[in-house]
Amino acid sequence: MNEFQRRSAEINDLLCVLNVLNWDARTQMPAGGSSARAQQQATISALAQEKLLDPAYEAAAQVVSGDDSTDDVENRAAQQALAAVSALRRIPAELTRELALLKSEAQDVWARAKAANDFSMFAPALTRMVELNRQLAEALGYEGHPYDALLNLYEPGVTVATLLPLFERLRAHHVPLLKAIQQQPQPRSEFLNRSYPADAQKRVSLTLAQKFGYDTQRGRLDESAHPFEISFTRQDVRITTRFQENFLSGALFGTLHETGHAMYEQGVRPELSRTVLTSDLTGLYAVGGASYGTHESQSRLWENRIGRSKAYWELHFPQLQAAFPEQLADVDTDAFHRAVNTVRPSLIRVEADELTYDLHIMLRVELERQLIGGELAVKDLPEAWNARIKSDLGLDVPDDAHGVLQDIHWSAGMIGSFPTYTIGNVMASQFYAAALEQVPDLEAGLLRGEYTPLREWLTDNIYQHGRTFTPHELLIRATGRGLDPQPYLDYLSGKYGELYGLNLQKEQTT
Amino acid sequence: MNEFQRRSAEINDLLCVLNVLNWDARTQMPAGGSSARAQQQATISALAQEKLLDPAYEAAAQVVSGDDSTDDVENRAAQQALAAVSALRRIPAELTRELALLKSEAQDVWARAKAANDFSMFAPALTRMVELNRQLAEALGYEGHPYDALLNLYEPGVTVATLLPLFERLRAHHVPLLKAIQQQPQPRSEFLNRSYPADAQKRVSLTLAQKFGYDTQRGRLDESAHPFEISFTRQDVRITTRFQENFLSGALFGTLHETGHAMYEQGVRPELSRTVLTSDLTGLYAVGGASYGTHESQSRLWENRIGRSKAYWELHFPQLQAAFPEQLADVDTDAFHRAVNTVRPSLIRVEADELTYDLHIMLRVELERQLIGGELAVKDLPEAWNARIKSDLGLDVPDDAHGVLQDIHWSAGMIGSFPTYTIGNVMASQFYAAALEQVPDLEAGLLRGEYTPLREWLTDNIYQHGRTFTPHELLIRATGRGLDPQPYLDYLSGKYGELYGLNLQKEQTT
Repeated sequence: MNEFQRRSAEINDLLCVLNVLNWDARTQMPAGGSSARAQQQATISALAQEKLLDPAYEAAAQVVSGDDSTDDVENRAAQQALAAVSALRRIPAELTRELALLKSEAQDVWARAKAANDFSMFAPALTRMVELNRQLAEALGYEGHPYDALLNLYEPGVTVATLLPLFERLRAHHVPLLKAIQQQPQPRSEFLNRSYPADAQKRVSLTLAQKFGYDTQRGRLDESAHPFEISFTRQDVRITTRFQENFLSGALFGTLHETGHAMYEQGVRPELSRTVLTSDLTGLYAVGGASYGTHESQSRLWENRIGRSKAYWELHFPQLQAAFPEQLADVDTDAFHRAVNTVRPSLIRVEADELTYDLHIMLRVELERQLIGGELAVKDLPEAWNARIKSDLGLDVPDDAHGVLQDIHWSAGMIGSFPTYTIGNVMASQFYAAALEQVPDLEAGLLRGEYTPLREWLTDNIYQHGRTFTPHELLIRATGRGLDPQPYLDYLSGKYGELYGLNLQKEQTT
Repeated sequence: MNEFQRRSAEINDLLCVLNVLNWDARTQMPAGGSSARAQQQATISALAQEKLLDPAYEAAAQVVSGDDSTDDVENRAAQQALAAVSALRRIPAELTRELALLKSEAQDVWARAKAANDFSMFAPALTRMVELNRQLAEALGYEGHPYDALLNLYEPGVTVATLLPLFERLRAHHVPLLKAIQQQPQPRSEFLNRSYPADAQKRVSLTLAQKFGYDTQRGRLDESAHPFEISFTRQDVRITTRFQENFLSGALFGTLHETGHAMYEQGVRPELSRTVLTSDLTGLYAVGGASYGTHESQSRLWENRIGRSKAYWELHFPQLQAAFPEQLADVDTDAFHRAVNTVRPSLIRVEADELTYDLHIMLRVELERQLIGGELAVKDLPEAWNARIKSDLGLDVPDDAHGVLQDIHWSAGMIGSFPTYTIGNVMASQFYAAALEQVPDLEAGLLRGEYTPLREWLTDNIYQHGRTFTPHELLIRATGRGLDPQPYLDYLSGKYGELYGLNLQKEQTT
């Protein structure tokens, strides 16, 4: 190891340790441990930042990047380290301190405001959060809109200028499709809310995850209040789900979703462990995926493109029925497949179907962009939210807890992260379309439950590279095009057209 | 916080994080995670050592210790930090590196040698381990025997010169008592090996632990191959047990044992969290107990003095019987109490009863002392071991796996730690005798299952102080005497005399 590699390994170890502390806090830690744990996390986090901003690290990265014999991958690692150092140096220490403090305070305030169903309790903290994020954007720098600087933290290369036309195209497709669906009768789905013991849900979910290729020699499934995936190098990639006794599809698809994230992390080349290319240095987080959107493309691909397909349930429904013979006695594969693909406008993002999910995201992105741009005041946010829910989804928001207060993101300071969910949807369809084109007999194999060829194509084209390439580069290399919503729109129209017996006109889908 | 406190908190955080990583590795981590985890642990460990040996830390400790306004406790913290820094500085970096390397290698070699039942496979690694520990003793310094320097790492203040007379006195008591017991008929105990489902064992064990006062808002019970207790500040103190379906008393008393350790850690004063006084700085380990022996005194006190007493089972046996109605249908309180106090010479230390346990310990201490002193060669170790088992316990050792290869300690480099088990036994009886004397109606309360007065006395006298006082100081403060085996010998003679109907002559017991 050279000096740059040695220091990078140390930083990555610290970030992996932070992930272990985080996983433990969310799945195992007794309630009494929280304040001591927060201090331990703060100490490790400060050490990681100190090591990253150590002038000797920058110097070591410069030696590597200035050396003609450095190979391409190593050179990219050095470049990324230098970019992160430069970005972090641009942020005033006082702003970093204030943001960290506000993030921890604002989450408490938000939780109380949500419980009390009172946006005005949260408004001052959110106002301050918007202000500090505006300062952060100015410190980081941008060419077009200040929101670009924040978005870039989660999805490098995407800007407001590229995002808006994409979203307009999605909206022009989604809204009429939703209206057409709403004129059709809904399939039955009441059986999803029968009583499903958590133990059996966990067994089935884990079996299905393993069938996709999740390696439990290098991972495990636990329960937590909010499902997540987290990795401590590719050798230990853990997932969690929430098991609700009266909601079978929650844990089931939740697990398939996290499995997609996990297989991405497990598929990173071993050589990238303990390097910059499995570290989000600006965010001080150990992660092997290229971006939030790229990561989300893999959870969505495995959860939705595969896990909600007809072929998938033709193969696996008997297994599910065997696990829950009484609960699913009067259900067949077709009914189950229709039930888990029901489109129905709802108030809550995390409960939304594939189609309305994007509308929830676009609403948030539009509003946070306006907040950062100074076009919308925090006090006017609930009204703007409710109006948009009404116009897009036709629903009246009864209270803030079911509206503007539902998500933790803004209180956690994650302004700029929402777009990545929809970007992930778009990328998932692009990658899947490319795999179908490039892998002979892929679809025929999937009908037989052969997931390895797809996972291997994804590993070759995406997973193995870790953070070596930007999302755009990955797309170009794998699909020949940049971000392109067409495969995604074709998928949604085709799927729901068939499920709801719609006679869609071509102009809606292109 | 002053500079010394701030730096101490940071070091303690790192040591607590090491404990989290260790706990996770032993209870949760998938097999594939081990090598990455070892690197993460090495990184955190190196950082802790770096922070400890930073000249600025020594300077900050000197400021505190040189300041007349420093209070006694803070002054002790500074003194302990200075002593640890001075000790660690005496150890050549090369020796530290070699020892760390050998420890990890030797444990693998030992595991293979034990599986193959072949001491000669382990002999070279052990020879080197003895040699490096001799060098360590020379580096640390000692007045009497080189073994003193090693012993001092685990039990400050105890030396070969004080240990030998203590052990002689124990042997003079234990060996004849054992012979007398062996002439008596044994109680039945076959029911302990019936089938006890692990789930029910865990429920009962945890209930009994909580009844003692183990706070599960600040702790949790898990399963691991070897039971242990570990803390990440007093706010998060975890224990593990091994549940064997055909051995009820293993998990039961194992849990009570670890509960004693855990209540010690949970009872440390909150003010000592994140200080030197909950850090073993020389061993780079977060721990609130004064020494290995003091810690062991608490596990033994709760497991044996309380947990194996007649009064305890008169109160709790009905509960056990309710949990295992079929398995314990033909057993009554008396039979159960006798069964869990059976004395029977055996080959394996961890399966030994209270009386023969000390003989196992004294054998190991004698041999490791001779190894370090150069009086015994590694190649002659199995013969010496087997001879001693024959003379003390009357047993023939059939093979090395049941003899000299049974314990992990030497391969883990822990030469000098064995005495602390027996010292713990001795201290447990001293503390318990003092509590009986000082707390009115303590015994009457215990008959009613009131454990709080005992726990509070122990908290006042021992737990709350963390590592503020040496074991000797704790003994003097709480019992008025230094290490004194008399209460322990009285306890064993009294208990076994009664259980086995012995007519013991007074000179055996004093």
